[in-house]
Amino acid sequence: MRVVVMGAGLIGTSIALALRARDADVLLTDRDPANLRLATDLGAGRSLEGAEPGLAPAGEPRPWSGDAPGPASAGGRAEPGAEPVADLVVIAVPPAAVAATLRDAQARRLGRVYTDAASVKSAPLAAARTLGCDLGSYVPGHPMGGSERSGPAAARADLFLGRPWALCPAPETAESAVEAVTELARACGAEPVRLSPADHDRAVALVSHGPHVTSAAVAARLAAGDPAALRLSGQGVRDVTRIAAGDPRLWTGILRHNAGPVADVLDAVAHDLTEAAAALRKLGAGDDASADTMTGLLRRGNTGRDRIPGKHGGPSRAYAVVPVVIPDEPGALARLFAAAETAGVNIEDVRLDHSPGLPVGVAQLSVRPQEAERLSAALAEKGWSVHG
Amino acid sequence: MRVVVMGAGLIGTSIALALRARDADVLLTDRDPANLRLATDLGAGRSLEGAEPGLAPAGEPRPWSGDAPGPASAGGRAEPGAEPVADLVVIAVPPAAVAATLRDAQARRLGRVYTDAASVKSAPLAAARTLGCDLGSYVPGHPMGGSERSGPAAARADLFLGRPWALCPAPETAESAVEAVTELARACGAEPVRLSPADHDRAVALVSHGPHVTSAAVAARLAAGDPAALRLSGQGVRDVTRIAAGDPRLWTGILRHNAGPVADVLDAVAHDLTEAAAALRKLGAGDDASADTMTGLLRRGNTGRDRIPGKHGGPSRAYAVVPVVIPDEPGALARLFAAAETAGVNIEDVRLDHSPGLPVGVAQLSVRPQEAERLSAALAEKGWSVHG
Repeated sequence: MRVVVMGAGLIGTSIALALRARDADVLLTDRDPANLRLATDLGAGRSLEGAEPGLAPAGEPRPWSGDAPGPASAGGRAEPGAEPVADLVVIAVPPAAVAATLRDAQARRLGRVYTDAASVKSAPLAAARTLGCDLGSYVPGHPMGGSERSGPAAARADLFLGRPWALCPAPETAESAVEAVTELARACGAEPVRLSPADHDRAVALVSHGPHVTSAAVAARLAAGDPAALRLSGQGVRDVTRIAAGDPRLWTGILRHNAGPVADVLDAVAHDLTEAAAALRKLGAGDDASADTMTGLLRRGNTGRDRIPGKHGGPSRAYAVVPVVIPDEPGALARLFAAAETAGVNIEDVRLDHSPGLPVGVAQLSVRPQEAERLSAALAEKGWSVHG
Repeated sequence: MRVVVMGAGLIGTSIALALRARDADVLLTDRDPANLRLATDLGAGRSLEGAEPGLAPAGEPRPWSGDAPGPASAGGRAEPGAEPVADLVVIAVPPAAVAATLRDAQARRLGRVYTDAASVKSAPLAAARTLGCDLGSYVPGHPMGGSERSGPAAARADLFLGRPWALCPAPETAESAVEAVTELARACGAEPVRLSPADHDRAVALVSHGPHVTSAAVAARLAAGDPAALRLSGQGVRDVTRIAAGDPRLWTGILRHNAGPVADVLDAVAHDLTEAAAALRKLGAGDDASADTMTGLLRRGNTGRDRIPGKHGGPSRAYAVVPVVIPDEPGALARLFAAAETAGVNIEDVRLDHSPGLPVGVAQLSVRPQEAERLSAALAEKGWSVHG
């Protein structure tokens, strides 16, 4: 299978890496040469330009980027009746650039089937219709993996493992095209979920866009907070505000294309918070009956939290974690990894937790479960303080 | 050192485990015999009742629990002038039960110094003053580790490792008592932070209680959501709503004692969300100027998020990140760290992004900014593929 991935940002490069792991031939393109170089260095595929030099004048920068929107410029145009370059084209660019990128890709006859990865679906589809794109070969899509980080350096082949991948065909979309993109989602380890573009947009307002803005509003409170107050930050506020680190311009671009459904969610959350604030003030003044309003909201929170489906077992959860206390000094990690190597154990992931003011930290080593015991024993034998 | 921990819930048992790891003699008590048995089985200490049978009539249930508030009943009363049972007494019960538990513990002369672990500080201190407790030996405290889970089964010796531990002495509190509790916090691996009870309560409204209620309000939206919509839930909404799984009754008990400061935070968040909703509706209707309102809130979110202190209490973004492509094989990280050591650069943090099935991954090395260039050059010279 040959796939063209347009936009070598976080999403595009991650899809490319997942496909490369299944031996697909992946051709990459990005308007930013640095993104493209990093993605190809990571083994995400070959440059489309290098592979198919006839398709576009050499040296012309590609008009697509996975990270930032930019004005689309027309690429080359294929001979009429030419064979498509690839079986499938994945358009991993910001929502505002999807339709123009699709139009150009179809003009260049880059693929038999086209899909995109934008977080909103109604607006890009409407724009593609307006631009006269062929909708029969276009399957609007949205792989739901993501990160507060962006760019190819943050890409991972397992970004979509066990995650939902929305498929939102237009009435015109051919069933065979939907099948091809369903296969793509499965190849990336994701779970295809089919729903209409409008249902998709309401759903992501609820489970993604609304939470994103709310996370930002909580974080915005911290912007004016006393530094002494911020020192008391624990894991809770870190989790609640993690996605508030996302790129503001990129996110405004997403939100504007899903304005109504997101605004509905934000108004409802604001209403609940205003009511909770009023109940708390009464409760603080001794009105015990107001406790029910507060507890009621927290209970609804429990119920909603419980309704989030469990993950479908990605390998990151399949690893066993071996915590090892290490001195906070140069070379300590090198010695630790050397000891693991001697034991023949591959460290799949590592997380360092330093203890402020203490001379030691904790390295959380993730390894395959069947190797955990061997690693623990080997490290303990060499004098490391192994826990758990 | 001998410590009495009253209340074997999540917090009390975790403190006890941390102290046991440092060979302290820990005596435990809880009004729920099951909690107490589980905590002692976990190695968190011995039962106070079993260890000091003279102190209370055998079989009388203790009036304290780390999980649920309950009416305090008087325990035994020590002989006047008797030696205290322990150096330190940690009261790990809900806010409403702190003052009565302190009064009873002091009547029984359980310790030289007393502290508590409740998430609010002004209200319990005021209640302790009203009950005529000895404030000279009492250091209101708040270890900031926590979890959405509760009970001794969720306890961990490292729950407070690297976390802030607020110390909020009253004007009457003896400096020697503050020193003893400072030592306790350090023994648990935490970072003591001293501030007034009122400052503490405003701070936790900002970094803990406000985010908690907001997390619940986001989760509450999901309670009424379409199951198909919920299938699209990704990591973002999981993180934002993690703490919404907390115990509603326990949390209402906390929030009511910090009503004013929390209500202020909730009103401010609600205001920002209402404004964002209005801006989005205008933006969706084509008013491009409203994008600034939306982007402005997201940018303030970035700023606030950046202000959450990272490791060693420093700003979270103080480190430069050097991404290096590494082969996914045993020894690769060991070689990489050895190369960094040779260059004399201390790796402050490392994050490994593997691509399952691919022969390479990316190691994100965090180093002091002034060392990033030297590290990049040193690694590149040794043939590593350094990016950024």
